[in-house]
Amino acid sequence: MAYIDLGVDEKTAPGITGPMRYRPETAKPLNELAEVLLRAPNTLPPGERELIAAYVSGLNHCAFCCSSHSAFAAAQLDQGMPLVDQVRADPDRAPISAKLRALLRIAGAVQISGREVTPAMVGDARALGASDVEIHDTVLIAAAFCMFNRYVDGLGTFAPQDPDAYTASAELIVRHGYGAAVSTATG
Amino acid sequence: MAYIDLGVDEKTAPGITGPMRYRPETAKPLNELAEVLLRAPNTLPPGERELIAAYVSGLNHCAFCCSSHSAFAAAQLDQGMPLVDQVRADPDRAPISAKLRALLRIAGAVQISGREVTPAMVGDARALGASDVEIHDTVLIAAAFCMFNRYVDGLGTFAPQDPDAYTASAELIVRHGYGAAVSTATG
Repeated sequence: MAYIDLGVDEKTAPGITGPMRYRPETAKPLNELAEVLLRAPNTLPPGERELIAAYVSGLNHCAFCCSSHSAFAAAQLDQGMPLVDQVRADPDRAPISAKLRALLRIAGAVQISGREVTPAMVGDARALGASDVEIHDTVLIAAAFCMFNRYVDGLGTFAPQDPDAYTASAELIVRHGYGAAVSTATG
Repeated sequence: MAYIDLGVDEKTAPGITGPMRYRPETAKPLNELAEVLLRAPNTLPPGERELIAAYVSGLNHCAFCCSSHSAFAAAQLDQGMPLVDQVRADPDRAPISAKLRALLRIAGAVQISGREVTPAMVGDARALGASDVEIHDTVLIAAAFCMFNRYVDGLGTFAPQDPDAYTASAELIVRHGYGAAVSTATG
């Protein structure tokens, strides 16, 4: 049970869905931010952006967001959940591009503190082909999930243990986007 | 100098202003979120909400955001900057209401991790008169500043040392809001 009365059945409105239905005024910009960062046209594919979100959510030990965005990443990556699991366990050895590895290193630094990012990390990412917009978006995706994770756990919301719950949400998000997210599990 | 080329003169567009001008697609929901959380009608006065933002930004050692939101809080609290300084130094002894003190305790927990918030902290705030919306908004303000702070510092943006820079921004924000914020210092 969440710490405040969200006015929803948390079994059908788990995680961030409850607070988003409870406070549509804040849900609107939060969903717009997720849509721009994770799904809008970008040289970083949506699956890679969701992977950054899942990786940071795992570092923050946010079960709901990590399960959600792992499922959303898996649904949009050819290698599916096995790759997501490899990246979450050890990004340095996962079979991903050197550029994505460098971006994940920046995201991992941001998860600790913005002040942990170094010019060398950014220089490495750039040398491996990352554009300034990709670096910007990586920093903001990582920062945004430090918000979403705290929002979900700071209100004590419910995280389903059944992986099928997240797979079903992934289908909705991939098809309809975060704009439709107040009525689905998204965070 | 920021880690990426933001295309702005950082002396006149410091802190979050540079990344917001650089990427208007993300600036829009970020400013809308700040506007709803910090300025929209609420039983928590804007000055108290800015105080929560300044307190969390101080805990995250984000010089730009802490100076900005300290100035924005001071401009909207009768006791001005001396109260902001007292709250930032020691919220347990600052001359604020017991309710605001309990909300700052929740915000301080969120700054570490959403998982640090306990039912007892929420129960204390409620017993001291905090509504569910006030508790929700406190959690989300604290979480949002864990994002804004990482965004500003993760891109290595410039923070002016002159306090007058932040006082000038405070006048603009108090008068015109975060909607006008892409052209001013806000974060």
